[in-house]
Amino acid sequence: MIFSPLLEQLIQSLTALPGVGPKSAQRMALHLLERDKAGAMKIAANLVSAVENIQHCQQCRIFSEDSLCTICKSEIRDRSIMCVVENPADLLAIEMSGTFRGLYFVLMGHLSPIDGIGPDELGLEILKSRLATGEVVELILATGTTVEGEATAHYIADLALAHKVKASRIAHGVPMGGELEFVDSNTLHLAFSSRRTVD
Amino acid sequence: MIFSPLLEQLIQSLTALPGVGPKSAQRMALHLLERDKAGAMKIAANLVSAVENIQHCQQCRIFSEDSLCTICKSEIRDRSIMCVVENPADLLAIEMSGTFRGLYFVLMGHLSPIDGIGPDELGLEILKSRLATGEVVELILATGTTVEGEATAHYIADLALAHKVKASRIAHGVPMGGELEFVDSNTLHLAFSSRRTVD
Repeated sequence: MIFSPLLEQLIQSLTALPGVGPKSAQRMALHLLERDKAGAMKIAANLVSAVENIQHCQQCRIFSEDSLCTICKSEIRDRSIMCVVENPADLLAIEMSGTFRGLYFVLMGHLSPIDGIGPDELGLEILKSRLATGEVVELILATGTTVEGEATAHYIADLALAHKVKASRIAHGVPMGGELEFVDSNTLHLAFSSRRTVD
Repeated sequence: MIFSPLLEQLIQSLTALPGVGPKSAQRMALHLLERDKAGAMKIAANLVSAVENIQHCQQCRIFSEDSLCTICKSEIRDRSIMCVVENPADLLAIEMSGTFRGLYFVLMGHLSPIDGIGPDELGLEILKSRLATGEVVELILATGTTVEGEATAHYIADLALAHKVKASRIAHGVPMGGELEFVDSNTLHLAFSSRRTVD
């Protein structure tokens, strides 16, 4: 039995955060109450306004409070090239790398018939209509290297080809700075089978 | 530049949580939006009600939404013995161990003249008035083993003696199951200097 039911409720609800167990939740709740009530109120307000206002961008399905996200609205992005990713976190990682200046399409998952996730759940109708406009010249498939990610990439590549859009897959292999002895055998297998002739 | 200003605000505010950097905050925000909007709303509501309603217990200074906390109100606790701790987390740890069934006094810190924390900031006037009632027979000092914790324990022990209340300090030494080779030298020093004759 804890000393305050309200505090116990708060600790309990904080365990909904990923990677937060009862012990960290307790630490978070006590920290906010002891030292940062303003921060606590800010988190609460931002959670409410995010949940109430954030929808999906109508073009790329990423989170956005407007009908079009800032990337789809941007006039400096290359509209002839589009990258397909599984999750918003993947998009963020690519944006942080600064390596890609085209548009995105976010599946919010991958094909997984067992879980009832088919083409409709991934918004592929929207993707089809975008491919149909002829604006996109190349579709880069950056889905995961899991079985489901590969299957999803295959499925979407077929879609692209049906619309006469070039489809490409990002390269997989040994990461930069990765020492061979620490690379797992699946990656090494991939790195060998995808080897390129040096000219 | 991120795709949604509201989401960016949310991620930013989540970094107020202890141990949460920008990367974990991003993961938390995306997780809640993708998979647990109800959980997000619950966290928001509980934060607001905790910040607005939780005060300090008038007797022991622990967090409580009522003027007296559930421990101070309880009729099954031993009111003749009181344990002084620095933080609510310390109290929780002792409660979880089930080793103590008396009352508490929570300092919400320790004496630290450099930071302007003196007897008044620790609520020692309240403690004095509780010692003056004569109800408390023994005061157990469970403040930290830091220099400040020791100084605070000393100061409060003097207070207790002035009120003719027995003061005791919890034992410090090698923890149960602690292997000597992994115990730090300060703890070993303490364990040797506090050794007891076996009879």
